Order: sequence, then structure tokens, then C-alpha cells
Amino acid sequence: MSLKDLTTSMLPAIESELQRIVARLDEPRTRPFHEMLTYHLGWTGEGSGPEAQGKRIRPLLVLLTTAACGANWKLALPAAASVELIHNFSLVHDDIQDGSDLRRGRTTVWKKWEMPQAINAGDTLFILAHLALLETGSKFPAEKALQACAIINEACLALSCGQFLDIFYEKHSDLTIEDYWPMISSKTAALLSACTRVGALLGGADEAAQESYRSFGHYLGLSFQVQDDYLGIWGDSTSTGKSTESDLLTGKKSLPVLYGLGKNGPFARRWAEGPIRAEEVRALAEQLAEEGAKLYTQEMADQMTELALRSLRAADPQGKAGEALFELAQGLLNRQA
Amino acid sequence: MSLKDLTTSMLPAIESELQRIVARLDEPRTRPFHEMLTYHLGWTGEGSGPEAQGKRIRPLLVLLTTAACGANWKLALPAAASVELIHNFSLVHDDIQDGSDLRRGRTTVWKKWEMPQAINAGDTLFILAHLALLETGSKFPAEKALQACAIINEACLALSCGQFLDIFYEKHSDLTIEDYWPMISSKTAALLSACTRVGALLGGADEAAQESYRSFGHYLGLSFQVQDDYLGIWGDSTSTGKSTESDLLTGKKSLPVLYGLGKNGPFARRWAEGPIRAEEVRALAEQLAEEGAKLYTQEMADQMTELALRSLRAADPQGKAGEALFELAQGLLNRQA
Repeated sequence: MSLKDLTTSMLPAIESELQRIVARLDEPRTRPFHEMLTYHLGWTGEGSGPEAQGKRIRPLLVLLTTAACGANWKLALPAAASVELIHNFSLVHDDIQDGSDLRRGRTTVWKKWEMPQAINAGDTLFILAHLALLETGSKFPAEKALQACAIINEACLALSCGQFLDIFYEKHSDLTIEDYWPMISSKTAALLSACTRVGALLGGADEAAQESYRSFGHYLGLSFQVQDDYLGIWGDSTSTGKSTESDLLTGKKSLPVLYGLGKNGPFARRWAEGPIRAEEVRALAEQLAEEGAKLYTQEMADQMTELALRSLRAADPQGKAGEALFELAQGLLNRQA
Repeated sequence: MSLKDLTTSMLPAIESELQRIVARLDEPRTRPFHEMLTYHLGWTGEGSGPEAQGKRIRPLLVLLTTAACGANWKLALPAAASVELIHNFSLVHDDIQDGSDLRRGRTTVWKKWEMPQAINAGDTLFILAHLALLETGSKFPAEKALQACAIINEACLALSCGQFLDIFYEKHSDLTIEDYWPMISSKTAALLSACTRVGALLGGADEAAQESYRSFGHYLGLSFQVQDDYLGIWGDSTSTGKSTESDLLTGKKSLPVLYGLGKNGPFARRWAEGPIRAEEVRALAEQLAEEGAKLYTQEMADQMTELALRSLRAADPQGKAGEALFELAQGLLNRQA
């Protein structure tokens, strides 16, 4: 129960830290602007509450890593808040780019306040993230704070390259399985590996341990994404509530789909004919499994999980926070939804 | 001729520095992404060249200030490139928010590559700006680099608050002249004052001189904006080429318009009736002048100019760079277009 114990104290601290940072905008002239951000972060407006706030996985990873290195996790709170704000900046812009109406069951920022304000709200979450990160300099030596800034900004650059590729590939059908790994490394794994690396840096870990933690975050991200892709096609539709949201319907070029396309068999031929209809989803998912995509995807997920856990063991995390990191990884990796 | 001499050596150095930073994306997978940024920065594509690159006023202000403090301006190049990238990040997003088709006579990024890629291109210019700024840490003590980061990010926060107000006020007609100054302080003056302050910080100026330089940039920005507003209504249409682009036609709530609205006279009554037609522009500009708006705007511009020059004198800038700063300020402030 280490994870639950620790998150019980860490999660409220993360929320307070986030609220303190965002409160910079809580001034008479910018109050409606403040409201956009508090709405998006799940604190205010219709449907607000823990469900709307998300799991705060990224800041938890920072804090748990710092603690697992034997340091006081509270000193890493500004950095932890920073990565959550960066994650949310990318969500606000993603929703505009994808034209998504809903995020965690709630109206998206651009649907509620229109596109121009939503672009600006996303930009502002990003700026606040930097201002938070810079506060690290008041708790750690300036060199270390600069290093943390560099790690996070490198991850952001990877994120934006991944975003470019994602949008670019939507219009290019010549995507292959070789394009998959660089894309998810950028889009999903880069920020997670920055979380664990910054946590280790602030926790006082040596270079080798920092690298192990970075690697842990990286493979955790890859494993998470591959499982997401698996569940997007073969997930228990009752538990995922995704029966009508199969990745086959949305046309997402996930790992199993790219595997199937590479096989050039019946699945690839059907895919080339145009959008999949809801009534075909079940049979096509079976066809894809028959062509080996299900087994391959599961094997890849297992392989990434194994690499994540091996990296974590190499990092040798200490105490309850160390146990919690293993627990968190297992929990993320064994999810059915 | 100090300004011309210095800019002749500084401008190519700024372009090289910008190109070096943006070249991070010049990789096989992200080459089309790199092209978006090099196009926007005026180096590639139709209409590329010095005209398309803009005046690079912000990086010049950084470098001239550093040099006027007696330091080697080349050490401030990453910071100078950073503010130019931040300016361009805001332009790319502005053009989406305003739905503008043209920027410096060229097709805007979102018109050319569509909105999703343009949002991401803007985000990426911002990320590259941070990575450039962090390089300051390899040329100056880490504490100083962190301070520079904080100054720039505070300016960005002001910029995004100004952007919020700008979009917000478009839909709110109860705007008064009291709302004008906070808005342009944020939108125009914040980044310029950050340029001169960071230049002074990196140039080794003491706190008092840093504050004078900051104040110089601030009033320079205000003066520039007020004159822009003046020229938007009473500019020599031949030299501005703006005869059909009068701020009266676009409905922009500039300083003279807000002054006129506050008078509650014939101008305000006509404004309240709805959009101004092209054939009314001349007479309405005269009406606005009669109500005192022209004189008031000119006085405000003169006042801000005087404050800018007074701040610059207090900063006591040295050498050719010092002369160049005075020259640059005079040039910006006496423009007719």
C-alpha cells in the first residue's frame, strides 16, 4: 500500500502547488482568463472534481522519483507542477488541432471559449510551467535548476516534433511500422522520461542512476502507448466503454494497424478500401489477430514493460517511494482499460 | 552612423544564430516541419528575403544594450535569438487567432500548412526560444542565466495576458481609455522592456542601470504603440499605403478611438451606429481630430518618447552602442509609417 499512502499525501500537495501557480492570473482584469485554466485543470465549472483532473501521473513520477532517491519530495513540487502544466498545455492545443469537443467527458476549452482564447490559454499554461520550473532555482543550486529546465525543454521539443509527425502522417498513407517508434517516443515517452530524469536529478542521484530513471520513464511511456493501442482494438469493450470507439473506426494508425498493413493481407486490402464501418469492427479485429498483430502487439508491450522494470531495478529506488514506483509501473502496465 | 555600423555586424550574427537554433529540426523526418519555421522567419519560400524577415528590433535591443554596458555583445546572441523567436511564436499564433491571410505581404503559416500544424509551429518556436535562452548558462553564471529566463518568461506571461484582454475586448464594447494602458503595456511594451533589461543584466549593469534600461524599453514600447495608433488614423496614407486600412475601417479600439468614445460626442454617436464605411473615413478622422483626439494622441506619444529618452539617459549607455541606442529610439519614434 506504499503507492496509496504516498499519493494520499502527494496528490493534494500537487493540486495546491498547481493552484498557487495558476493564481497568478487571479486578478480583476484577467479573472475570466483564470477561469479558463481552472476549468481545464478540473477545479471549476461543470463536471469539475477528481475525475476531471486526471491522474496527475507525471507530477507523481517526479515526486516519487525524488523521494526514491532519498530526498525531500516537497522540494520538487514546482518541477512536478511544471510537467503537469506542460502536459495540459499540450492537451488544450491537441483538442483544437483534433477538433475534439470533449476531454474527460467535459466540453473542451476551445469549444467553450472559442479557438483564439484556447490557443492563448494553452500558451499560458506553458508559460506558467516555465515560471514554476524556474522556482526550482530557489530550492536547488542554479546549475541544477538550469539542467532541469534543459531536460524539460528538450522533452517539449520532442513532443512538438511528435505532434508534427502525428498531424503529418494523418495525410500520408505511406506510414510504416518503422515510423511508429520514433513517433511514440516523442509523443508519449519523452515527457515521461523527462519526469523521472528530473526527479532523479533533484533527488541527488548520480549520472548513472539518472540515466536508469530516464530509461525507466521512457520504456514506461512506450509500454503504456503500446498497451493503449492494444486496448484500442482488443480491449474489453465493457470495461473500456470503447465498443463504438475502436481505433479501427477512427482510422488511427496504431501499432496493430501498422503491423497489419505491413502484412499486405486481407486486413491491409480492406483498410485500403476506405473507412471501416461499425458492423465490420469485430470481424476485422479478429482478422487482424489472425494475421499476427495481436500477438505481436502484446509481445511488444511485454518487452517494453520488461525493459521499464529492468531500468527501474537498475536505478535501485529506495524506501516506500521505491516500492510505490514499482507499484505504479505495474498498475499502469496491467490495466485493462 | 553608429547604428548602421553596428547593425551591419549584428544583423548577420542574429540571422546565423537563429538559423543555428532552428536547424535542430533539419533532420530527415522533420524536414517539412523545419521548412515551416524557415519560411515564417523569412529565409525560404516565396517572398523570402530581408523584407520578409522583419527588422529584428528585439534582438538588436538586447545586443545593443549588452554592448552599451561595455560587454561583448556576442555572448548575448542566444538570448537575443530567444526574444526574436518568442516574438515570432506570438506572430504565428496571432495570425491564426485573427484569421490573417498575410504577414509582411506573404501567406501566413496557418494559411499555407493549416491551423493544426501552425499551432504546433508556434509552440515549437517558443520551445526553441527557451532552449536558446538556456544556452546563456554556458556563457554566464547559472544564476544570471536563471534570472534572464525569469525576466523573459514574466514578459511572456504579460504578453499572454495582453492577448487575452485584446481578444476579450473585441467582444466587449464597454472598453475605456483606462483599459488601454494595461493592455498595450502587456502586448507591446513587456517584451521590449524584457529585451533591454536582459541586455543590461548580461552586460553586467548594476540593479539601478538594469531598471533604467528596463524602463527605457517599456516607454519605447508604449511610445511606439501610441504612434502606431496615431498613424493608423492620421498617417500619410501615401507613405503608409494604409489609405484603405485605416483603423477606423477595421474597428480597432486604438487610443484615439477610445479618447473619442470617452467624449461622447458626434464621433462616439457615429461609432455606436455600426461599422464605418470607406467613404466616411476622411471626414470621421477630421471629426475625431476636432474633438481633441489627435492632439491628445500626439501628446501621449511625445510624453512616452520623452520618458523613454529620459530613462535611456539615466542608464548612461556607453560607446558606439550607446549612441546607436539613442539613434534607434529616435528612428523608431520619428517614423512617418
